[in-house]
Amino acid sequence: MNTDKIEGKNAVNEALSSGRTINKIWLLKPEGGRRLEPALAKILDSANKKGIVVTRAPRNVLDKLSETHNHQGVIASVAAHDYADLDDIIENARQAGHAPLLIALDELKDAYNLGSILRISDCCSVDGVIIPERRSIALDSMVAKASAGALEYVPVARVTNLAQTLRNLKEKEGFWVCGTDMDGEVSYDEADYTGSMVIVIGSEGEGIREGVRKCCDFMVTIPMTGHVNSLNAAVAAGVVVFEAVKRRRQGKNS
Amino acid sequence: MNTDKIEGKNAVNEALSSGRTINKIWLLKPEGGRRLEPALAKILDSANKKGIVVTRAPRNVLDKLSETHNHQGVIASVAAHDYADLDDIIENARQAGHAPLLIALDELKDAYNLGSILRISDCCSVDGVIIPERRSIALDSMVAKASAGALEYVPVARVTNLAQTLRNLKEKEGFWVCGTDMDGEVSYDEADYTGSMVIVIGSEGEGIREGVRKCCDFMVTIPMTGHVNSLNAAVAAGVVVFEAVKRRRQGKNS
Repeated sequence: MNTDKIEGKNAVNEALSSGRTINKIWLLKPEGGRRLEPALAKILDSANKKGIVVTRAPRNVLDKLSETHNHQGVIASVAAHDYADLDDIIENARQAGHAPLLIALDELKDAYNLGSILRISDCCSVDGVIIPERRSIALDSMVAKASAGALEYVPVARVTNLAQTLRNLKEKEGFWVCGTDMDGEVSYDEADYTGSMVIVIGSEGEGIREGVRKCCDFMVTIPMTGHVNSLNAAVAAGVVVFEAVKRRRQGKNS
Repeated sequence: MNTDKIEGKNAVNEALSSGRTINKIWLLKPEGGRRLEPALAKILDSANKKGIVVTRAPRNVLDKLSETHNHQGVIASVAAHDYADLDDIIENARQAGHAPLLIALDELKDAYNLGSILRISDCCSVDGVIIPERRSIALDSMVAKASAGALEYVPVARVTNLAQTLRNLKEKEGFWVCGTDMDGEVSYDEADYTGSMVIVIGSEGEGIREGVRKCCDFMVTIPMTGHVNSLNAAVAAGVVVFEAVKRRRQGKNS
């Protein structure tokens, strides 16, 4: 079975209360007969009530198990989040009678932003979100928390090579690939978003990588009039995706 | 002297270019004689040219000084952020020949969201942001960092009683007060945003308080079609404010 680790008091607590399937919990056994701190005791109690296996272990064992090196005395082994299959996402949309709308995230690394974009995707009934396997944040408990539950409803597909996936979508599935950029040639509110469409959002700071940019049929930009002129990636995604969805609904193609 | 810390490459860079008074900068001294990364070298150069004291320190010293725990190798000590006077904000806009556009934040508590909304305000040339004195987040180093430098350019006024301030804006300054809500009566892309206008954004989770809601001339809503239908406050602000600014520019009043 494919498993993930969740580490730290808050994260494990969140996994417990969200009802996520937890295989096992490793919990600190304090040395010299000292008492467990209240937050850990609460986790122990909650895990016991749910019948989850809890292994008590000394600090050096937890240190070895830890991937974050900040386990705070508790590590949970959970079933990895199920990723969706991109072909299924496209097929489901077409069977439901509409042209698919997807969001692709190029190396987004911030859990808060990914969570916010999943919320946007839910609010706009985006058919699915594509993330690259490498150099992207995974769907961990932080993302689940930031998504305010949207992760349960928005299919996320993980792909090995985002540029290749975009090319396949264009060539084999008839998609339009719309990039977003500070210097895009079309204003976001004047683009044609009709048809099967994937909107690509770049990473904070670095934007869309060159190889991915080359796969875009057109780049949209959000006109700005300030000094810093830099939007948070999730805010930029929200502005573009809500406009795209509105224009698709209105059937506007220019 | 009342001081604040500004942390991170973008935030310190913006503070340097905006001409803000910087008392001192702590800059990473790489271990083992390695070279400073380009962005930090640029900050060092710029600080030296301005005659600002720069202390080179190892990572653990910066870690201890850091309030955000994400200093990226640079921390600046600056005079505490000056709040703007609301009357001045309005006067400046009118002297510049346009009807003022303000954003009011009702008890926003999240530094990341406040920073993101300051970025939106900069990108849209919003004239100023109003926050209540109590139960709101202050303009600290977390907000400065999340704002990616926008805090240096967007005037923020702090008011004792937001509802009273909104009533004054309506009665004495001829403002329209536009609330944002899950159940607002007007779609955000069909509202009239012309004239002197303040857009009110509620807190995450709780929305706009009843007393503040009563001061709104109309409530706009973002139509949603998903399951969870909950947007991050900054994303919602971005969608509404960009639309408002676009419609003001086009002079649309319906």
